[in-house]
Parts: sequence; C-alpha cells; structure tokens
Amino acid sequence: MSKLWSDIVHKLTPYVPGEQPKLDDLVKLNTNENPYGPSPRVLEALKLEAADSLRLYPDPNSDALKAVIAEVHHLKANQVFVGNGSDEVLAHTFQALLKHDKPLLFPDITYSFYPVYCGLYDIEYKAIALADDFTINIDDYDQLNGGIIFPNPNAPTGIPLALMQIETLLQKNTQSVVVIDEAYVDFGTESAVNLIHRYPNLLVTHTFSKARSLAGLRVGYALGSADLIEALMRVKDSFNSYPIDRFASAGAIAAMQDATYFEQTCSKVIETRERLVKELTVLGFDVLPSGANFIFAKHQLKGGAELTALLREKSIIVRHFKSPIRIAAYLRITIGTDAQSKKLISALKELL
Amino acid sequence: MSKLWSDIVHKLTPYVPGEQPKLDDLVKLNTNENPYGPSPRVLEALKLEAADSLRLYPDPNSDALKAVIAEVHHLKANQVFVGNGSDEVLAHTFQALLKHDKPLLFPDITYSFYPVYCGLYDIEYKAIALADDFTINIDDYDQLNGGIIFPNPNAPTGIPLALMQIETLLQKNTQSVVVIDEAYVDFGTESAVNLIHRYPNLLVTHTFSKARSLAGLRVGYALGSADLIEALMRVKDSFNSYPIDRFASAGAIAAMQDATYFEQTCSKVIETRERLVKELTVLGFDVLPSGANFIFAKHQLKGGAELTALLREKSIIVRHFKSPIRIAAYLRITIGTDAQSKKLISALKELL
Repeated sequence: MSKLWSDIVHKLTPYVPGEQPKLDDLVKLNTNENPYGPSPRVLEALKLEAADSLRLYPDPNSDALKAVIAEVHHLKANQVFVGNGSDEVLAHTFQALLKHDKPLLFPDITYSFYPVYCGLYDIEYKAIALADDFTINIDDYDQLNGGIIFPNPNAPTGIPLALMQIETLLQKNTQSVVVIDEAYVDFGTESAVNLIHRYPNLLVTHTFSKARSLAGLRVGYALGSADLIEALMRVKDSFNSYPIDRFASAGAIAAMQDATYFEQTCSKVIETRERLVKELTVLGFDVLPSGANFIFAKHQLKGGAELTALLREKSIIVRHFKSPIRIAAYLRITIGTDAQSKKLISALKELL
Repeated sequence: MSKLWSDIVHKLTPYVPGEQPKLDDLVKLNTNENPYGPSPRVLEALKLEAADSLRLYPDPNSDALKAVIAEVHHLKANQVFVGNGSDEVLAHTFQALLKHDKPLLFPDITYSFYPVYCGLYDIEYKAIALADDFTINIDDYDQLNGGIIFPNPNAPTGIPLALMQIETLLQKNTQSVVVIDEAYVDFGTESAVNLIHRYPNLLVTHTFSKARSLAGLRVGYALGSADLIEALMRVKDSFNSYPIDRFASAGAIAAMQDATYFEQTCSKVIETRERLVKELTVLGFDVLPSGANFIFAKHQLKGGAELTALLREKSIIVRHFKSPIRIAAYLRITIGTDAQSKKLISALKELL
C-alpha cells in the first residue's frame, strides 16, 4: 500500500531513541535522565491540575509559562518559544529557520536527530568533521551556509565549547541563524543566552527533560530575538494550536520557580560525575572532558559494543553508537546517583 | 530580520483557534469543549503520575495507550497511531499521506485548519463547495485527487453524513487516502471505524478533547490499516520521539476504560442539544441538523457578527466565522449544560 504514502515518507530514516526498558530494577544510564525526581513543589503543582478544568483547552500561547521562562533568563516573553519537548522545538526550528538554498552545517558527530530533521523537511546539509580530539573547531564553520546548529556541550561527546568561541562564530556568521542546543548546559557549561541581546540571529534551545528532571512531561523552549521567535510561532500555529497541555505548563512553571532545588540537583550530578570520571580512569578508561550529565568514555582494551552487552547482562544499560566508526569504541554513560555509580564500577571491575 | 526565515514561513497563514479567555464567570460556548469534566477514574489515574517517575522519558511508542484504544475499537495495536492532540495527528497525516502530485479534496466549508496544513507542507488542494443545504455531496469527490479529507459530522455545520455515503465514496475512491475526521462523532454520528477492515485506504481520526472531556490533556489518535499507520509512525519518529507525556498517556488510558461515564456524558450533551434546538427554533433561529456537540444556527432577522457581539456583552461567548460569506449569518454554539442553555436562551430573549 505504500503508493498511498507521500514521497517523503519513503525516504525517511527515523531517529531511534535510547531504549526505554519496561523492566524495573535496571541501572538505567542510557538516556541522560536526571537521577533525581522533580522538585516537591513541581509535584504539588501537578496534582492540582488533575481537576475538572481538564475539559478546557490550555492557553494556546502558554503565556504564563513564557513569562516565567523570560524572567529567569532576563528576556521578554516575545523572545521565548515553548514546545512539546525540545525535539518539537528543534523540528519547528529546522522547518522555520534552517531551510534555505545553502547547506545547513553541523558536526559529523552530534545529536543524531539533526540529519533526521533534514530528511523530514528536505534540507541540504553538510556534516563538518570534529577535530581529532572530538572538539568543535569554529573556524571550520566559516563557509557558505544556510544555518549552523550544534549542541553545547556537544552530544554524545559531552565536550563543552567556550562561550568566547561561540561569540567569535556569531561575529563572523551574521547572515544565517546559529542554533546552540543547550539541552545539557546546566551541568557545567557556559550558556550563550546572554549573547541573544547582541546577536539577533542566535537561537538557544533548552529542555526540561534533563536538569529540571521532567523528561516525562515533555517541555522544551527556544530563546532568541522576537523575529526568530515569530517564525517559530507561525509554524507552530500552522501545526498544532495547543502543544503544551495543562500539566506540562503547570509543572514547567513550578520547576522554573524552584531555583534552589534545580541548583542542588545539578551540583549533585556534577559531583557524582567528577568522582565517576576518576574511578573510570583508574579502571583504564579514557574519558572525554564533560560539561553534561553524561560522559563519553572508551576502555583501552575492551570494545564499546562488547562492554555494553556485558553490562546489560549485569542489568546496567548504557548507550552505544555503532557508527560513525570513530566513536564505536565509546560508551555514553548517563550520570546517575552515587549508588548507581558504585554498581557500575563494581560491575566493570568484575568484567575487566 | 525576516531574511532569516525559511521561505515557507513567509507564505503561512496560521490557524486561529477560538478564544481561550482568561476571565472566569463566562458562559464559554465557543470552542466545543465538554461541559462535564473527565471521569473521576481519570482524575485518580492522573494524580498517580505526579511522582518521581517524571524524571524518566515516557514510552516513545505509547504501547499501553495504543493497546487500550485498539481494544475499544476492535483493531490491532499496529492499526492505531497516537499524537499530541488530533491536530498533531492531522498535521502528520497531511505530510505523510495527503501530499501527492494530484490535489487534495475537502469541502469549502469545513475545519479551517485543513488549508493551513496545506500551506505548511506545500500541498495543492481543491475546495469542493457544499450543497445549498450545507451537506457534503459525495459525487462531487468522484474526480482526480491525491487524497480526500472531511470531518464527520462536518465542522462548523455539525451536519452528519450517513455511513452508507462514506462507503460509496470508498468503493469509488481506492487509489488515494480518505480521511474521516471524527472529532465529534460520539455525539450522535455513525462512525466509519468498522470500514477500516475492508478499506485499507481509510484513515479515521479521533480526539480525547471533546467526548472524553480532556481538551486540557492533548491526545488524539488515528485508526487505519497497518500500512497507513506505518507512514504516520515514520513521520512522527522523524519529528518527535516522545509526543505523549506521562499524564496524557495515563489520563487517556483511564478515559478509554470508563465507557459508562463516557456514554452518560455524551447522552447528556445530546439531550441538552435537542432541547436547545427546539428553544432556538421558537426564538426564530434556523438550526442545521447536528450530530455534534455544537450547533450551527442563524437568526432570521439578526446577523451573526452582531449577535455574537451582543452575547459577548452578556458574558456569553459563541464562535462566529466572518468568511466565507455563506456562513457569516451563523453562530456556532457549543452545547453546554442545561443551566448554560438557560442563560443563553434568556440572554437571547432580551436581545431579540
């Protein structure tokens, strides 16, 4: 029946997310979720939404949520766009701001959803090789382009790029949109949000799924000049009037308002990361520098696929990418609790 | 800065949803919400989701929800697609199944989001005029096409089309996808779901926003052959891995499982509708036959825009469409509670 499909469907290679196992009792270190649940204030706010008012549509513009996000980032509400997870925000961004006659640029090793969006919207792109040490060299992006996008810190390497480098890129690249995908920025990477005031072609995306402990709620946002945000609103309002449900809005507002809880959990994750890096190094791992809630590490002797499979047998799930070949030796390990780190380390000691 | 926008953004004419007023104490009869809140079992299920588990992603495939929907409709799980409201389901449908070399057909007076999706995905379409009595004449759709879509009952007229007519259309039209948008079907219109077994090119869309009282939760679904559903999955997995958050999934599952509550509230809405139609007729309104939770009515003397404005002054909101001119005399009135009907009727008595 595939004659019934639109042409584009035949050509798609959909994104494959990390496994969401339906078993309990796993040490789940594969999809970069926060090991700590959301703030108690968030849970209280969410319980209040389980009410008769669910019969009514939510605010199509999510004004209350945008106001809170704007306040936290010292921006105006018309510089904020919200979506059903940062994946939806990115999808609209690709269609609204990154589809041009010239190729979109992004690293060859990066969030693997980017080429998928290009397939969905028929966007030409050029993958720019990371340097030998897996860093992004911004000079490589100084070429004809219809847009530039990369995560900071990058995924799945976790390596942060200094803010000065991003500013240099923005100074040179003024004629197309530069998207900095800051999904993991709160775990020790410098944010580019403050550059929005000076660079109207800068869009920064954030998520509630990582540092805000709300992957189950699906909220992400973009920050940028009112012009960029307007393009996203036009696409959103041509796609789905009400992408943010009442729970998503209430939970995200409460999460933004509880700065103390947010800072505490981020600090705990960073501390656990630093301890884990040391212990893995002792066990013979090379660990890339991480500004994220995950690390990218390879063992000096055992391969990535093999180690992933062996850990799985011990009920520990990490993420492994078969391709490109340059990263096939690596494991991407989400930072969990200290107790989870301990289980991982003792499992590795048995295996190695 | 609009040089930064993709070409498509300049051409879009976004959909404008009905007003979601931020004032209380209004009689809100403008966006076809259910006057009755969700089932108590739904609220209980939702409260349980306000938990630590929100730190984890939801199931990207929403398997549990699909299983329950499949069971209710006597289909297999691979014949079910779920999305973030039926608007998202429709958006993916336009991109995945309705974009072809030949024009998409839909009524000239119908859900006004359809031409917006065509703009977003650059789909050629042909609007087919409704008959003089505002009914859909299926013979008019017997022509070259890349797909056919209409709501049943149609919006904003509320007029239902007999199932036999839909089957005749499917018998003639076998080479392109026929989408029956059944957002309002549970209020007294015959569903085409059972035809799915015989017509692999039939897709039927439903929503939790109307009969299931969950507009605030954002869940919709499509039913069809596994082939059609696969196309939607491919697009969804190239757009957003996790469109259905944990609350949306839990609430929708509980709503599907409470058939008694669902039938009771639908019956109440239908009874209120029948009483309201009689009273409006006495007041000099012509009311189109409705199989929906709204009616489309014009007064024999007063214009639609004027009446809408006058009702607004009395804190009653109904929906009015300025164009096309054929429907400018009409009000679209959502069926509320009997008490809301009473307020509407007494306001109209003062005004007329």
